[in-house]
Amino acid sequence: MEKNFDTMVADFKDYIKRIKQYNDALGIIFWDLRTGAPKKGASDRAEVIGMLSTEMFRLATSDEMAKYIDYFTMSEQNEKLDNIMKVLVNESKREYDKFKKIPEAKYKEYVILTSEAETIWEEAKNTNNFALFSPYLERIVNFNIEFIDIWGYKDNKYNTLLDYYEPGMTVDKLDKIFGELRAKIVPLVASIKASEFQPDDSIFTKDFDVKKQEEFSIYILEKMGYDFEAGRLDESEHPFTIGITPGDVRITTHYYPNLFSSALFSSIHEGGHALYEQNISNNLNGTTLCTGTSMGIHESQSRFWENLVGRSYSFWKCYYQELLSIFPEQFEGIAVEEFYKAINKVEASLIRVEADELTYNLHVMIRYEIEKALINQQIKVADLPEIWNKKMEEYLGVVPPNDAKGVLQDVHWSGGSFGYFPSYTLGNIYSAQFCNAIRKEMPDFDEMIGRGEMLKIKEWLSEKIHKYGKLLTPAEILMDVTGEEINPEYLVEYLESKYKAIYNLK
Amino acid sequence: MEKNFDTMVADFKDYIKRIKQYNDALGIIFWDLRTGAPKKGASDRAEVIGMLSTEMFRLATSDEMAKYIDYFTMSEQNEKLDNIMKVLVNESKREYDKFKKIPEAKYKEYVILTSEAETIWEEAKNTNNFALFSPYLERIVNFNIEFIDIWGYKDNKYNTLLDYYEPGMTVDKLDKIFGELRAKIVPLVASIKASEFQPDDSIFTKDFDVKKQEEFSIYILEKMGYDFEAGRLDESEHPFTIGITPGDVRITTHYYPNLFSSALFSSIHEGGHALYEQNISNNLNGTTLCTGTSMGIHESQSRFWENLVGRSYSFWKCYYQELLSIFPEQFEGIAVEEFYKAINKVEASLIRVEADELTYNLHVMIRYEIEKALINQQIKVADLPEIWNKKMEEYLGVVPPNDAKGVLQDVHWSGGSFGYFPSYTLGNIYSAQFCNAIRKEMPDFDEMIGRGEMLKIKEWLSEKIHKYGKLLTPAEILMDVTGEEINPEYLVEYLESKYKAIYNLK
Repeated sequence: MEKNFDTMVADFKDYIKRIKQYNDALGIIFWDLRTGAPKKGASDRAEVIGMLSTEMFRLATSDEMAKYIDYFTMSEQNEKLDNIMKVLVNESKREYDKFKKIPEAKYKEYVILTSEAETIWEEAKNTNNFALFSPYLERIVNFNIEFIDIWGYKDNKYNTLLDYYEPGMTVDKLDKIFGELRAKIVPLVASIKASEFQPDDSIFTKDFDVKKQEEFSIYILEKMGYDFEAGRLDESEHPFTIGITPGDVRITTHYYPNLFSSALFSSIHEGGHALYEQNISNNLNGTTLCTGTSMGIHESQSRFWENLVGRSYSFWKCYYQELLSIFPEQFEGIAVEEFYKAINKVEASLIRVEADELTYNLHVMIRYEIEKALINQQIKVADLPEIWNKKMEEYLGVVPPNDAKGVLQDVHWSGGSFGYFPSYTLGNIYSAQFCNAIRKEMPDFDEMIGRGEMLKIKEWLSEKIHKYGKLLTPAEILMDVTGEEINPEYLVEYLESKYKAIYNLK
Repeated sequence: MEKNFDTMVADFKDYIKRIKQYNDALGIIFWDLRTGAPKKGASDRAEVIGMLSTEMFRLATSDEMAKYIDYFTMSEQNEKLDNIMKVLVNESKREYDKFKKIPEAKYKEYVILTSEAETIWEEAKNTNNFALFSPYLERIVNFNIEFIDIWGYKDNKYNTLLDYYEPGMTVDKLDKIFGELRAKIVPLVASIKASEFQPDDSIFTKDFDVKKQEEFSIYILEKMGYDFEAGRLDESEHPFTIGITPGDVRITTHYYPNLFSSALFSSIHEGGHALYEQNISNNLNGTTLCTGTSMGIHESQSRFWENLVGRSYSFWKCYYQELLSIFPEQFEGIAVEEFYKAINKVEASLIRVEADELTYNLHVMIRYEIEKALINQQIKVADLPEIWNKKMEEYLGVVPPNDAKGVLQDVHWSGGSFGYFPSYTLGNIYSAQFCNAIRKEMPDFDEMIGRGEMLKIKEWLSEKIHKYGKLLTPAEILMDVTGEEINPEYLVEYLESKYKAIYNLK
């Protein structure tokens, strides 16, 4: 080596920063595409995205990167690295190995396939034609199986995909966790269905001026501690959060003029994601560690704010008055208790993204079971509609009238995102565990929310979780914050106590 | 050469496309920065811009580029190129020579200096402190003189800078053109000042709801043929147009709740720029020729729409009724004739960007005279405030009370944009020449506008000017369209006939 250690460190950091900056540029362009970019520019823009992604891919898998990884993983140099550098080297190696092993031509073929498949999926969904999408899905599944063979796997092929979204997660663990959860949720949903009391959520389907909805979303986001000088709220077809740098974390929602609850809870949900990205430590800025550590932990933050805070009675005890002042006619004569029950109405339904916080997990489990079986070649793509409908009946007691409202409803598979769905329920589980930990330190958690002291909660989350970015693994964060491994009991406890009270169950 | 001719052509096109795609990404990021990007993200974003610009610079000055240029400029290959490829090779060579000749370290020093200087200029302007900005400006001027020595020049050092913004333009030509124009405008402004009749433009300073201003801007832009599926209208501090690709050309304006005329005429002005960029031929898409051919020709399009169309009597005969329906109270009792005269009020004033279409040219000439003398080392930066004020008195008969409203008012010099200012007046001159050519083909030009048939005018401009992008030089376009070289007489004629009528002059 001609260069000395310090120069190598500085050069590596510059190199990583360049990768991150390509990612930042892509972030802006994605945000722009979804928030009103002129549609006639879309095809040229797709090519720009392709060019920038290719450059980023090249940097992450270059000989120069290999040289840095080799150098810094030698024990003599590795010992001298600080913690951030150590994790950064590991993370870079993980990405390098993942992508370098796949022949470039094969990877390109896969990227083109998935981008075509998304268009085909959309058409298949719109025309309720699974047969149209089926051959594409089959090829995508086969590619994933091939990739797993290249990457290698332990115990179960699906583990490799799970690990990508949630480092350390395995089929064994998930089967157990999801099994426990399902055993509690299914009977709870059944009791709720049988309950004489059913909340009236028709109160949300009046006229709700979109500007006023926006005003109330902004009001709540500010109370949560979302920093509008480091972000902005826009509208898009599907709500999303994009963290470019901690100083620029943007969220979107979607307003329905005749449905109050959707935009607000989307705003709170995305606000939860955004608080994570806005509060990552400055030390990590300019590195690829400056983002959430996993999809599951990310989802724990959005779910925490959306459900454990935003759908709590204390929250509305505090903010219902403000809501009434914005929509006095729409909520006239509706007491806060009634409003609270309405936003927590549980009903087994067909569409995951519209599901309540209780049945949502059952939707996730169905997808998990199917993905696991597909990747292990235990079921065939062609049989998916039948399998889907059977599982819906078994888990939720409802059967889709067609594939558009069934197996074709989600975009994920068309993009090849196998292993992603479990993150949603992992997020719910983690959020309940984190909430339990907060309550130990802040026994008056509910009263604090009732007094509007959400900033203290945000600070706690930032200090315990957000600031670490990708520096700690999901399991490390969970252990540090709660002293436990993943444990679905807290979620079960929360759901049972909340919904038994709302539905007057024993 | 191992590769054959066709492969070289295809590779070169791909290479150029990559440069263009970096430019597209930068375009989106610039637009984003000026239309509401969170301010806490600004410093990280500046670094992303730096990285992308550096990559683009490297591509434009690489050994690979040199190889293409060498290959395609050999007569054997050059003869086989189609016209687009020929111009593309020339344009690439022009850029290569321009940047390659300057040592990279020197160029970097200059880029850092100008980016610092812009911040300093802003502070100097805000605190009315020319001495603060003066040393920076001196260094910028010296850099430019040094660059000109490296690049070489013909007859006059300033010619090299002029040629950058307006290929083919020289000091000799400009002195003659500006001299003729000034000789006509100065006495015309004097007669206007002495006129008993003065339009009342206080009618624009009532309350004008910003949403309604936007609505009317959109209405007019649609009538002009601006394609909202290939663009969008936003608000920014200073109005601008950014043409990313013909399918994505965005414009901005700035709304003043108590000043009607500003946002509308900015919208029309930027709309004129945008029509140019939206209507460049598809053949040029993906190349660096897919933009306006010069700043002067670009400005001719914006000025054409803003002044020759938007401030014409025919235009308001057609659209005043619509305006009245949007602002019935604000314009109650004001006849269209009175309104027309008010939007054409002429008054010698201090600030260029607020000047009317007549005195605007005098502001430009002052800057031109100063730049020419600076670059030829005939005056000193330290003496600029005095020189400025003297020229203001001489050309416009008004003297700035301070440097903030005088020599410090424009951003251009802090960024090193010497040679840019003349484009504004060249644009006015060209626009009048183009208008004369249209009138020959469409003798009922005024009546057409009066009937709201602006799309026919747009199509004429697109067919004669827009579609060529950078494929033709400004002089070629002018000659093809008008059969003449640049000639200020048409602008003089237009201004004299319009303003003599408005101000009842002989």
